[in-house]
Amino acid sequence: MVVVNGQREDRISIHDRGLAYGDGLFETVALISGVPQHWDLHLQRMARGCERLGLPFPAPEVFARDIEGLSPPPARCVLKLILTRGSGGRGYLPPEAPSPTRIACLLPWPDYPATHVTDGVTVRLCRTRLGINPFLAGIKHLNRLEQVLARAEWREGNIAEGLMLDARGRLIEGTMSNVVLIFNGSLHTPSVRDCGVAGIMREVVMRECRAAGMSIIERDIGWQEVREAQEMFLTNSLIGLWSVRCVSTPEGQFTYGAPEVTRQLRACLSAQLPGTHA
Amino acid sequence: MVVVNGQREDRISIHDRGLAYGDGLFETVALISGVPQHWDLHLQRMARGCERLGLPFPAPEVFARDIEGLSPPPARCVLKLILTRGSGGRGYLPPEAPSPTRIACLLPWPDYPATHVTDGVTVRLCRTRLGINPFLAGIKHLNRLEQVLARAEWREGNIAEGLMLDARGRLIEGTMSNVVLIFNGSLHTPSVRDCGVAGIMREVVMRECRAAGMSIIERDIGWQEVREAQEMFLTNSLIGLWSVRCVSTPEGQFTYGAPEVTRQLRACLSAQLPGTHA
Repeated sequence: MVVVNGQREDRISIHDRGLAYGDGLFETVALISGVPQHWDLHLQRMARGCERLGLPFPAPEVFARDIEGLSPPPARCVLKLILTRGSGGRGYLPPEAPSPTRIACLLPWPDYPATHVTDGVTVRLCRTRLGINPFLAGIKHLNRLEQVLARAEWREGNIAEGLMLDARGRLIEGTMSNVVLIFNGSLHTPSVRDCGVAGIMREVVMRECRAAGMSIIERDIGWQEVREAQEMFLTNSLIGLWSVRCVSTPEGQFTYGAPEVTRQLRACLSAQLPGTHA
Repeated sequence: MVVVNGQREDRISIHDRGLAYGDGLFETVALISGVPQHWDLHLQRMARGCERLGLPFPAPEVFARDIEGLSPPPARCVLKLILTRGSGGRGYLPPEAPSPTRIACLLPWPDYPATHVTDGVTVRLCRTRLGINPFLAGIKHLNRLEQVLARAEWREGNIAEGLMLDARGRLIEGTMSNVVLIFNGSLHTPSVRDCGVAGIMREVVMRECRAAGMSIIERDIGWQEVREAQEMFLTNSLIGLWSVRCVSTPEGQFTYGAPEVTRQLRACLSAQLPGTHA
């Protein structure tokens, strides 16, 4: 089920700048009983992305009508939104008054094993690195070849995610998730100032931790520090929180102990996580 | 005029990974009397791109049939080719056996002022920088937001191009062109090992210079060196060679002297340049 600019339609012009240059943004939203979860945060991130790219931001009601037009099922599913600069302009030069293309579609909920939540996951370190570009950092734009190449590095079903370093060797994120590390009971998450995506569930975790009086520190985290953490967990809007049990690297594996802090945090956050609505 | 996978069609699925992630490649080719210029070099670059991205490379005959299907006019025009990984896969994970989407379309020849060739151009220094990613460097992939943002920095018609530095402050290229500098009569062009596109006209210039016994050196070029050059010129498949007369920077303008070496080179290369077929 797809709507393009409010019309039932599942194709776009080959001249769309979203295809030509990745000139646009997207959001992947948990849709539960037709209700987009953390909707304000998704809209805020899209608005920030529009500001960075110089795109007009559609009124939130427009997206709401798109979602209605999709007739979402009562079960949980995934809402994918894409907003491109539309067609026009001269080569890379954007048109002065762009007519954005707005795409909304429903996708099935991913069938991740339930043990990813209950037992934690094994992850690997990717060879593909993230280039540094502060102007594109944090927003969820359509230039995602780095993630595609990193994700293409493995097909083993027992590896749930790949960790990505940036060009300077700092841990930034997973291919599709953000990362939180626990050092002596306190939470640390890589800065997404230079590269990476500011994930919605990462933001929810930070907000809820702060509301509960727990500190969560955004900072540069070197790869060597990752082994020294007591726990690691991954976040995104669909997975919620997955604790990391084991990290596979070219130099061998290392494991984390019992994810005590992660478990407590998941309990605190249960109302915020999509998994609890299964 | 557009063909998609050999069929007259000007739209693609919104699920195409070219749109979702910029997961693909493109080529912009000068088409003169129906003949794609420097065709072998374009195909070679696309083949290198396919190898990097893990995409099957279509047989050259397939592209040739696409071009025939477009019934190109006898005048010169632009052939744009896009090759994406098609639809499928799970999120960023590419499908094991992708069915690429192949798009070929004709675009009008750009109406650059004739004085750009005869008198040279004014360029500016862009604030937007190129992120460093050796794995994506050199190929012409669809992740072009850096170029879009750099090109969106100006709308003044008297500025023909913007120069882009990388995250480390090295001069890499223009938004849509490569750069060659002349120091004491010898040619130097920025390395595209870490970022940037290995342009076809850049390759033609390097090949022809070497064939004529002139050296052309690919190396890292810091911004401070750019002022010290005697000449600068820009290359791409559509513009041929434009000498740079004036560079506008936040610290003011500087100009180059008479483009003697560039003029000689243009004369040597005349059979290779699209402008001579006007």
